[in-house]
Amino acid sequence: MSTKSAARPGGRSARVQQAVHEAVRGLDGELARERLTVPLIAERAGVTPSTIYRRWGCLRELLADVAAQRLQPEAPLAQTGSLAGDLFAWTQEYMEEMTSTPGRQVLADVLGSTHQERRTRCWQWQRDQLSLLLERAASRGEAPLPGVEQLLDGVMAPLIYRLSYAPHTLDEARLRHWIRQTLDEAVAAPSAARGET
Amino acid sequence: MSTKSAARPGGRSARVQQAVHEAVRGLDGELARERLTVPLIAERAGVTPSTIYRRWGCLRELLADVAAQRLQPEAPLAQTGSLAGDLFAWTQEYMEEMTSTPGRQVLADVLGSTHQERRTRCWQWQRDQLSLLLERAASRGEAPLPGVEQLLDGVMAPLIYRLSYAPHTLDEARLRHWIRQTLDEAVAAPSAARGET
Repeated sequence: MSTKSAARPGGRSARVQQAVHEAVRGLDGELARERLTVPLIAERAGVTPSTIYRRWGCLRELLADVAAQRLQPEAPLAQTGSLAGDLFAWTQEYMEEMTSTPGRQVLADVLGSTHQERRTRCWQWQRDQLSLLLERAASRGEAPLPGVEQLLDGVMAPLIYRLSYAPHTLDEARLRHWIRQTLDEAVAAPSAARGET
Repeated sequence: MSTKSAARPGGRSARVQQAVHEAVRGLDGELARERLTVPLIAERAGVTPSTIYRRWGCLRELLADVAAQRLQPEAPLAQTGSLAGDLFAWTQEYMEEMTSTPGRQVLADVLGSTHQERRTRCWQWQRDQLSLLLERAASRGEAPLPGVEQLLDGVMAPLIYRLSYAPHTLDEARLRHWIRQTLDEAVAAPSAARGET
């Protein structure tokens, strides 16, 4: 994990990051993506362009950093009373957000970044959310449960794959099918859970 | 599909595309990615920068266009005598190529592009390859077979998802597990094949 992105909250570094992120979010809504430049962002944020280049390297990586933060919203997870329901509520919201024009831009920014740690952060966040849903299901006594890896491969992977390559093929029926299939596999072969945390 | 990328082969447009693609591939091997610029590429290709801007819009989209072509190699598909074997041979080679440093750059360029048609081209290519493997299996009398959509969601999706988010978690055992699971599903529920071509 880069020390740059783990800057102490509240320090000067965190304030610069916040100002620059806000400037990007503001300008991104006002200008066509092609017209965004580092000097423009620097001016809006009240920092020098070299501050941005030193910290993010280039415009593309700055955009990816802002996008990675947008991919981790703070919204509380829905509680529907069943793992299948909770999974559907969460992934359906994710799908809806990511098929919008700004959502697709966010996904492209993150997947197009050359910094692996930015994607690892998003991946960790997906794992954390799914782990939380699994813990809730376990505390309700649901069994057998799939593992986090099975949910990542069986539900998140086809969702993000189709968001990237073929968003027009996505719908709620497909999402329900992946969730049902992954939960059924856990019933059929509970020992197939691999690499669980 | 953009008419730009469907330029008549052999025409002036195709020659410009070839020269510019070759210039990108050459310079990409010589310079750090951060130092690649449109004027440099134009000079190497013997065209004006405005030719490149007019056709590709910006450097990022040009890189994505070159990357999309690299993602569709012409190598013949291995014939191992079984669908499971053919799938493993093909995806294992894809995994190996895409976990290399240039492979990861290619994947990031394509997934980071804002032009959906470029990713649709890559997706269509994946479908074509898998369809060919399925046709061969059918002609050998293998049955029941999964559908193309099941192979995309069950094997390609987790492969590309983990290539993007967590390449360190990929190995051949995981690949074999996805293939086995997807083929087993076709046996357990042949009617689950959805949206087949």
